[in-house]
Amino acid sequence: MPLTAEIIAVGTELLLGDVINSNAAWLSRELAALGIHVYHHVTVGDNPARIQAVIDHALTRKTQPANLLLFTGGLGPTDDDLTVATLADYFNATLVADPDSEASIRQFFVARGQPMSASNIKQALKPTDAVTVANPLGTAPGIFWELTPGAHPHVTQPTLIATFPGVPKELTVMWPAVRDHLLAFQEKHRMPVQRLFTRFLHFFGIGESKLGELLSDLMEQDNPTVAPYVGNAQVRIRVVARAATQAEADALIAPVEAEILRRCGQYYFGRDEDTLEGTVGEQLRRSNLTLAVAESCTGGLVSSRLTDVPGSSDYIRLNAVTYSNDQKTALLGVPEATLAAFGAVSAETAEAMAMGIRRLSGCDIGLSLTGIAGPDGGAPDKPVGLLYIGLATPDGQVTHEKVLVNSRNKRTDMKFWFSQYALHTVRQWLQDHPEKKSDALTSETLSL
Amino acid sequence: MPLTAEIIAVGTELLLGDVINSNAAWLSRELAALGIHVYHHVTVGDNPARIQAVIDHALTRKTQPANLLLFTGGLGPTDDDLTVATLADYFNATLVADPDSEASIRQFFVARGQPMSASNIKQALKPTDAVTVANPLGTAPGIFWELTPGAHPHVTQPTLIATFPGVPKELTVMWPAVRDHLLAFQEKHRMPVQRLFTRFLHFFGIGESKLGELLSDLMEQDNPTVAPYVGNAQVRIRVVARAATQAEADALIAPVEAEILRRCGQYYFGRDEDTLEGTVGEQLRRSNLTLAVAESCTGGLVSSRLTDVPGSSDYIRLNAVTYSNDQKTALLGVPEATLAAFGAVSAETAEAMAMGIRRLSGCDIGLSLTGIAGPDGGAPDKPVGLLYIGLATPDGQVTHEKVLVNSRNKRTDMKFWFSQYALHTVRQWLQDHPEKKSDALTSETLSL
Repeated sequence: MPLTAEIIAVGTELLLGDVINSNAAWLSRELAALGIHVYHHVTVGDNPARIQAVIDHALTRKTQPANLLLFTGGLGPTDDDLTVATLADYFNATLVADPDSEASIRQFFVARGQPMSASNIKQALKPTDAVTVANPLGTAPGIFWELTPGAHPHVTQPTLIATFPGVPKELTVMWPAVRDHLLAFQEKHRMPVQRLFTRFLHFFGIGESKLGELLSDLMEQDNPTVAPYVGNAQVRIRVVARAATQAEADALIAPVEAEILRRCGQYYFGRDEDTLEGTVGEQLRRSNLTLAVAESCTGGLVSSRLTDVPGSSDYIRLNAVTYSNDQKTALLGVPEATLAAFGAVSAETAEAMAMGIRRLSGCDIGLSLTGIAGPDGGAPDKPVGLLYIGLATPDGQVTHEKVLVNSRNKRTDMKFWFSQYALHTVRQWLQDHPEKKSDALTSETLSL
Repeated sequence: MPLTAEIIAVGTELLLGDVINSNAAWLSRELAALGIHVYHHVTVGDNPARIQAVIDHALTRKTQPANLLLFTGGLGPTDDDLTVATLADYFNATLVADPDSEASIRQFFVARGQPMSASNIKQALKPTDAVTVANPLGTAPGIFWELTPGAHPHVTQPTLIATFPGVPKELTVMWPAVRDHLLAFQEKHRMPVQRLFTRFLHFFGIGESKLGELLSDLMEQDNPTVAPYVGNAQVRIRVVARAATQAEADALIAPVEAEILRRCGQYYFGRDEDTLEGTVGEQLRRSNLTLAVAESCTGGLVSSRLTDVPGSSDYIRLNAVTYSNDQKTALLGVPEATLAAFGAVSAETAEAMAMGIRRLSGCDIGLSLTGIAGPDGGAPDKPVGLLYIGLATPDGQVTHEKVLVNSRNKRTDMKFWFSQYALHTVRQWLQDHPEKKSDALTSETLSL
């Protein structure tokens, strides 16, 4: 019998609406990739009787009873963290302290020079025949538990239980160990598996509906399926292939991906885990060019995103946040007359900032942003959402772009949109100027 | 009998993990504010038999059966949008087209100059005795339906059903109409309503378990309840009062909040929507002090967070990201000898950077960060996760702090932890030095 999963989130904070349950979606996607069907998500509070009733129902549903229960939450050190104890009660299992877990919980506190409370040791408990899933980011390990038929009157087939902490990044880092257990189980029981393989393609500078129009015929096909999604200040195309192996999926996806890029490639900046800042970094590295950013309205966000990329010190040396007009002049040499005549948010100031940061840093490319992130500070001729991007290039030329973002975005979203436009501008310039810088040019530029 | 709600999300896309179910949390929070308990969230696919089984179970749970079912999703025009038809089947009700809905669906398409498909008219259907909930943002209206005992063998008490589209912004705008129906129902049945009022208190520099120990006696009380949660590189204490009015809740919460702050106030940085960067900004504004940041490993994140706060230009003028050693010397005046003797990641460099940015910016306080964000670049004596924070204060003194963050955090999380520690350092210094700067000192400092 194939694996049928039910994802059970435990936590009163979820039922009060204080936390959004993103774990269920994340796990569902991973399970789909393993060919494991998910028919129900359930959320229940920190209450042993109700948790037991949820287990009971999951195992005995008239349609699609589960033989794989994944729990998220309720693994913490406090008295209202009940998941493992309730599972042990339900399945009448004895809990023992896992020595490795206990040692690593102790180590966690020693490493931080913090005292460990007695309640933390509770987290090392597991049913005797369950295995522990280590949690490198926190003190709550998970368990992976294989129940044989008869372990409980409702367990009539081999049944698997996995527990995860509620903290998404801890769950994420623990998942590969559980996935390996699941793959081993599928193999042991010779389960025929048709997995889903997903590829995301990332676009900026084009809307979801326009992209949908350009790809409407591709969106009607069945394997792989093609669908656009609105992402965080970008659009994503999701391509999903049903296949037995990655190689088979790749063969299905490759021609569709090529056709999508043929039609919309100018807006494309990467796939799957790629980011715009990572793509720009890769372009800089390939061209052997360095970049310096002078920010005003974005306050360091572009710089922070560029340096989110490991190894970015190869092409980033100095970025500046010149938030006051005085500092635009003092540090970047923006003429006071420019600021007086055109204002801080203007094409002229953006260009002067870009030239200034290029000169100051000795980098090949100078990028600048000056705009109005809101919620205040807008005016009829310069509304909230207005952004000027300056770009000073290795040949000493300087250009600018003007952008207008929906003024109803909140300030932090506005900053992100601004940073997307700025990185997009650099990406496009680098795409149009792919020639590798010679070493001679390097020295010359650096001696400025 | 009070209202007991169950939130049922319908949609295979949720079970595939393509969409995160944020509606359940949003509705839960609104229901809590009405004093309506939510004991379960359930997600089920676009399948009539399984939707019916979920309704069945919600009405017949052994503990906390629901008498208010809120459905999200499955109201669209396509064949796999089944919510209303399945409800009608289950409760053996006749569906009729609501004339108002039909007219407004027609109007929706006319206004957009788009052709209406026949399937759209399906969305106007509702059970005869249900009322329609208008959807001003889309074509799918909702229903509010009051069932009397006997409407189905499992309906043994007055039972309410409400349906919403899955699109969060449509649900949000339709909610007030449903809330009014619920308030009217509570009043008609003279239900004693005790609402939940929540306050969050935010802490940094102390772990969840330690906080739990310090507050263990408070966590045992019933009204308000007190519980700690792990947040994003911080800990939150949630205080929830059951009360009839906000004033009554405030009176219950105030003494508990005061006691929590008496015990753990040194780690407290704000409540509810407060952020660490916002609190630091408020402190700076109150003290009439300015702050400048020189970052290395965090690459601009501290600067970006500080400028996420509207009005931060009042106390931020210049921040710098000196990513290369050359720039630490060229821009900030860190002696080459210091870098050579102690390295870029050292207490000595952190202090020189803090002094340098204070001098360069003319601000009152200079803050610096230099560390190893990983994943590479660590060494036995300087591992990934090591951070030095420098602080140069208005009196010309300079100090540093050394921090070690779990090296297994991924780079972006590491940067966020680093930024938390740096902002925490500034917050603590400002808390310990609350005297307002005199105007005389302002001029003197700025003339440096």
